[in-house]
Amino acid sequence: MKEFNTIRTRANRLDSPDKATGEAIYVDDISKPGMLFGALLQSPHAHAKVLSIDTTEAKKLPGVKAVLTSKDVGTIPYGVSPARYDETVFVTDKVRYVGDEIAAVAATSLDIALKAVELIRVEYEILPAVFTVEDAIKEDAPQIHEKYKGNLTAEVHQEFGDVEKGLKESDIIKTTTVKNKRQDGAFLEMQGCIAEFDRRGNLTLTSGTQTPHYVQRTVAMVLGMDIGKVRVKKPYLGAGFGIKAAANPMELACCFLAKETNKPVKMNYTREQVFMFCRARHQFTHTITTGAKKDGTLVALKHECTLDGGAYSSFGIATVYYAGSLLAGPYKLPNMSYEGFRVYNNKPACGAQRGHGAVIARAAFEQQLDMIAEELGIDPMELRIKNMMSRGDTTCNDLNMSSFGMSECIDAVREGSDWDRKKGNMPIGKGIGMACGFFVSGAGFPIYRSDTYHGTVMIKLTEDGGTALVYTASAEIGQGSDTAFAMIAAEALGVPLSAIRLASGDTDMGVDLGAYSSRQTLMTGHATKDAAEHVKSQVLAVLAEKLDTPVEDMDIKNGFIEFKNQTLDFSELRTTYIKEHRGWIDNPDSEKLTFNEASRIAYLEKGTIVGTGKYKPVFLGGKYKGAAVGTSPAYGCSAQVAEVTVDMGTGQVIIDNVTDAHDCGKAINMTSVEGQMEGSVSMGMGEAMHEEVIFDDKGNVLNNDLAEYKLVTAMDMPKVKSIVVESDEPNGPFGAKEVGEGAIMPTIPAILNAVYDAAGVRIYELPLTPERVYTAIQEYKERKGAA
Amino acid sequence: MKEFNTIRTRANRLDSPDKATGEAIYVDDISKPGMLFGALLQSPHAHAKVLSIDTTEAKKLPGVKAVLTSKDVGTIPYGVSPARYDETVFVTDKVRYVGDEIAAVAATSLDIALKAVELIRVEYEILPAVFTVEDAIKEDAPQIHEKYKGNLTAEVHQEFGDVEKGLKESDIIKTTTVKNKRQDGAFLEMQGCIAEFDRRGNLTLTSGTQTPHYVQRTVAMVLGMDIGKVRVKKPYLGAGFGIKAAANPMELACCFLAKETNKPVKMNYTREQVFMFCRARHQFTHTITTGAKKDGTLVALKHECTLDGGAYSSFGIATVYYAGSLLAGPYKLPNMSYEGFRVYNNKPACGAQRGHGAVIARAAFEQQLDMIAEELGIDPMELRIKNMMSRGDTTCNDLNMSSFGMSECIDAVREGSDWDRKKGNMPIGKGIGMACGFFVSGAGFPIYRSDTYHGTVMIKLTEDGGTALVYTASAEIGQGSDTAFAMIAAEALGVPLSAIRLASGDTDMGVDLGAYSSRQTLMTGHATKDAAEHVKSQVLAVLAEKLDTPVEDMDIKNGFIEFKNQTLDFSELRTTYIKEHRGWIDNPDSEKLTFNEASRIAYLEKGTIVGTGKYKPVFLGGKYKGAAVGTSPAYGCSAQVAEVTVDMGTGQVIIDNVTDAHDCGKAINMTSVEGQMEGSVSMGMGEAMHEEVIFDDKGNVLNNDLAEYKLVTAMDMPKVKSIVVESDEPNGPFGAKEVGEGAIMPTIPAILNAVYDAAGVRIYELPLTPERVYTAIQEYKERKGAA
Repeated sequence: MKEFNTIRTRANRLDSPDKATGEAIYVDDISKPGMLFGALLQSPHAHAKVLSIDTTEAKKLPGVKAVLTSKDVGTIPYGVSPARYDETVFVTDKVRYVGDEIAAVAATSLDIALKAVELIRVEYEILPAVFTVEDAIKEDAPQIHEKYKGNLTAEVHQEFGDVEKGLKESDIIKTTTVKNKRQDGAFLEMQGCIAEFDRRGNLTLTSGTQTPHYVQRTVAMVLGMDIGKVRVKKPYLGAGFGIKAAANPMELACCFLAKETNKPVKMNYTREQVFMFCRARHQFTHTITTGAKKDGTLVALKHECTLDGGAYSSFGIATVYYAGSLLAGPYKLPNMSYEGFRVYNNKPACGAQRGHGAVIARAAFEQQLDMIAEELGIDPMELRIKNMMSRGDTTCNDLNMSSFGMSECIDAVREGSDWDRKKGNMPIGKGIGMACGFFVSGAGFPIYRSDTYHGTVMIKLTEDGGTALVYTASAEIGQGSDTAFAMIAAEALGVPLSAIRLASGDTDMGVDLGAYSSRQTLMTGHATKDAAEHVKSQVLAVLAEKLDTPVEDMDIKNGFIEFKNQTLDFSELRTTYIKEHRGWIDNPDSEKLTFNEASRIAYLEKGTIVGTGKYKPVFLGGKYKGAAVGTSPAYGCSAQVAEVTVDMGTGQVIIDNVTDAHDCGKAINMTSVEGQMEGSVSMGMGEAMHEEVIFDDKGNVLNNDLAEYKLVTAMDMPKVKSIVVESDEPNGPFGAKEVGEGAIMPTIPAILNAVYDAAGVRIYELPLTPERVYTAIQEYKERKGAA
Repeated sequence: MKEFNTIRTRANRLDSPDKATGEAIYVDDISKPGMLFGALLQSPHAHAKVLSIDTTEAKKLPGVKAVLTSKDVGTIPYGVSPARYDETVFVTDKVRYVGDEIAAVAATSLDIALKAVELIRVEYEILPAVFTVEDAIKEDAPQIHEKYKGNLTAEVHQEFGDVEKGLKESDIIKTTTVKNKRQDGAFLEMQGCIAEFDRRGNLTLTSGTQTPHYVQRTVAMVLGMDIGKVRVKKPYLGAGFGIKAAANPMELACCFLAKETNKPVKMNYTREQVFMFCRARHQFTHTITTGAKKDGTLVALKHECTLDGGAYSSFGIATVYYAGSLLAGPYKLPNMSYEGFRVYNNKPACGAQRGHGAVIARAAFEQQLDMIAEELGIDPMELRIKNMMSRGDTTCNDLNMSSFGMSECIDAVREGSDWDRKKGNMPIGKGIGMACGFFVSGAGFPIYRSDTYHGTVMIKLTEDGGTALVYTASAEIGQGSDTAFAMIAAEALGVPLSAIRLASGDTDMGVDLGAYSSRQTLMTGHATKDAAEHVKSQVLAVLAEKLDTPVEDMDIKNGFIEFKNQTLDFSELRTTYIKEHRGWIDNPDSEKLTFNEASRIAYLEKGTIVGTGKYKPVFLGGKYKGAAVGTSPAYGCSAQVAEVTVDMGTGQVIIDNVTDAHDCGKAINMTSVEGQMEGSVSMGMGEAMHEEVIFDDKGNVLNNDLAEYKLVTAMDMPKVKSIVVESDEPNGPFGAKEVGEGAIMPTIPAILNAVYDAAGVRIYELPLTPERVYTAIQEYKERKGAA
């Protein structure tokens, strides 16, 4: 007998047919009768006082139904972290970046709305603007927010162990500074939403969000409504990558416009507005000092980081913590200090993006490990294996590796990439590199610090007994979560996947914190399993009574009721309950009782069978400030090997192949796990190789389209060998943990280490443009020539 | 302290604002991306063999995506009563009425679909057709259905007591024959639907139906699908009156077209097609013989009835039973016999319409009561009071008057109409008349004979504790049921109506047999109350534990938790659970604990709070065949007085006013009860005065529009004095029972009796056209002159 019937298979995703046929409904596919179209007036200046706003002409334009500014909607502050609510729907006194929202218009057509936006007259008094961390922290720098002196969003000062002592005891110390460039989420579907009030004052916001729950909370807070009167619904979503994980000002403006006009209002960002809004990966500058013993034992890590935050905090408080805390593993590291500073300036705000905060820190650190290994003459893999934590170990900052398939991942990529044969034996211009990484499976607390549930799920059986309807507020954002939860429900209930219908992304269905921090498979998965078990127990309890058999002697497997050591006669039961329904209860004459029959009997006996499930992690994290950020019920871990070709004449880098192993605890849908691994490699490659949001000196994005912002395309993708490792996470449903973000961690440093192996140069500034690599090669040649 | 806080008030209906502003979404307001439009080919002949169907040219037309006939969709028979499944989606061998469905087309526009329908070539062999009961029952009449010999859909032969003996013992015997004309439902919204398959084979049918549950069952059966894979959703509905209480062939064709094309398909009936489809009130011919003692005591009723059924049975089997069984009350009647025959012919099928089956029988019988009263010199009211049943009495055919406010109704209309002063004292041409009636509050069995639940309801509390989401599959069809269930939920839960959000009309939400037989307030109301009590018990159980107080000592009233004889301190509870949510938990410092707080505490303690409720009537009805039809958990009863003016020169009748009293057990929403009473008077007036579907001799409807089919308009309505009587029905939720159909019962006979009072003529054929009344007056004058 197989251990599992549904999970660990390669299931067809529930959403694939809709997406393959173009029939999937996204926000912009939806129209409502009488719907108006909204548009935003956004600042053309990076920093300016708003002296006056004149909406007279805009309001006069035929077809315009509402023009709103902060005078109309109030100035309730909001943001991501309650500790740093630094935004309002529309600006009050001044604009802080090119794109800051000043007003919104609803009109009978988008053309009219856009025309009306042009008719709004704003008087500005231009203020000096700052666009870099360096300029923003100068003593006389213009202050972006009155309340947050020195343009600091947040600062972190942490020390675990004694770093200075550790460094003194080290035989080898490496210090490097690594920086990346600002990224854009560059998802295919731009943000969009439709807000609609019913006449009893209930609001439905249909939005392209990763986090219906947080949007619901923010909308309720900013509009002054009860949470129970706000319903947020997410249709299909064209990805988010973290950027869509919080309410945006367009969503809020849209709700206010709908309230004002008593009509449904639709709004969409253009691609330019997506770049303007940003909220994607920060530009980080990491200075890292690592100390090790001669034998390679890591002793201390000293880490300083600044984050180029932009005009608002967004996820910044969490980001600055993550940038530090996730270096404490997967290696034993007794002493670690971290100084982090997230700095405001007059660019769009940065936020969370896949691998939130930890990606560039990992790139810097894993490069240093290679440098230390080289200097000590140890194979880089061996150095990592030597320092590797074990299952059950806890990092210096209290992260517990409750499952830990790191060694299996290293073994897998070592063998899969033919590392031992290739490493050290590549010709000039060809290189191989590796790196490891790990990431959280959800955050220990909701963003707003509460002990509420992270996920609740309802499962209802249909009256015919044949179908289980799974209701979850979780967010399918393209990652395959709907399919994963349907599979978990099927597995836990003991029915085939075809017996599951699932509805998600609707706050009326329950609480779910949404798709961020790689939390859903573990957390929503738990709630789904819990609900399915609740349903199962109710069905079996009825059978137990009717057949006079203890519940413990029964189980449901693959659509059949399994009885322990018993040959029971179901004919009486069938005569009483099923007879009249032959034709639509399957298999009524089989020797085995089907789930369909049992579920129908339970319905007739008890009425609607509804199971509820919930999940809340146990208290996680240490006692230090910020402990909650980074602590998780479980950590996914991964190793990757990259092979590259560097054109020594031009500096052009080509990724030849990637071998990728990830420990996801237990694969729910094997194909989706691999999909997340490959997606992570693709995104990591883009960041390593060419992604960069470029600004002019006024704070305008110069490459605000997908022609000039260079993503990795299918043509650029190397062969990726994905190896799924399963460590059976004790805190995960059926042993599952994250894969969506952890898999990006090793990609950049593996590439950087491979480039070094190929060309002998270390690149400390991303992306790896040919110019940058070429320059490094020339400097290297000069140094070698000089030596 | 008031007994009730929410019910028995005049609540604003949940649907009123949407409807008043035009924002209510009906089926035809909905569009789906890629949606196709369907059209039906319907027979132009009343009776013909179909020799061949050639769809070649239709399929060639650009834009046509599917053309389906019975060859494509199969011939699974369906209908309303499983005992008489005499329909198929498309005809197989022959057409049976003008409008019979032959084929359906789906195309990219309605224009193309209609054009394609014209291109389908059908070869017919015309058969002789019959259009009347008299012709259809002739020995050599053409047979409409091979299986049902003699063109009989159903026949009923019942006798309770000994009628012949009763008549022999009678001092006075009256025999009359009364007939009406076929009606049309004439609802404002024509039937429409949208069918859509997802790519996993699940079907969603959005349809303008009164009975999502039955449509779901029929669709599943005809398409060969599991019920759990078929979801039927009903948006706002522009009334139904019984006609939309079963699946129609357009719905089924639409599902097949969606399956064939893999696209959403929308179909609508035109007004002409509504008349063609019909399924409205039959033309009845009742011959009734009533025997009474000298003192007015009713002794026996002998009743024969034929129903002009049309080409299919539809609800006909139930109709022919109802036409007999509901004369057994509200008067004591020891002996009753009934012979009923429902006859097929080549007109559209008739079905159920408000007051299903019982309206014309009541009109005939209540006229006879007046005739007997007149001859015996007894006031018609007194005669009725003398024979009136009492609470708890059971009719000869086992209908139990578990509550019975009939006397109160009579008293109310007697006083309200100033009967005692007016009766017998009106000048010629002015008249006053009265009648009584009663009707079921739902049928004892579902149409398909099962002991399944008649209603299941789920109620889920939102995480903030402030809102209860009520999920029901019941059908708001304009009658106000959504509001009634929200009020029942609020009352049972102990919260204000504003705390309720309700979603209905969706088979995924549960089982509900829908809006027919005036069942919802009692049956769905029970299930709603049950679900609310389940929720309440869960919330109070948590409080009981937290406050160490027995559940019995707590209640919820008007949004507050009430504690018996206790002064409890909630500060610790609030500190633990509520503190962090100040701002969105109301009233956190009040001395009283709010429901909002308690519900939030319950959520934090237990997860999602979901209550489930269900209702199934106890076994009802006697042992005789057909006992289930007509038996109900409760019966609404009513009395009406009508005053009329008859123009003795032209025969024109004007209804001057109506005084209407109805015993609804307990009024949930007082305004809606009155609305149903007034609506019933309006519909009864239409039938009495001018409604009549007129056919030519080929079976075509001549007056198939609302210009020529004469409905009662607002201009025609007299003043109606509505008096609500409450008898506290023991089988009803909070004592409630029906009002939607019972209130029509006395309208026609009250008018007929008033016309007699005014003009001295009894009219035995409806409607009361001036011609018919004029002719009767002339005959009366001649008789008088001759006498």
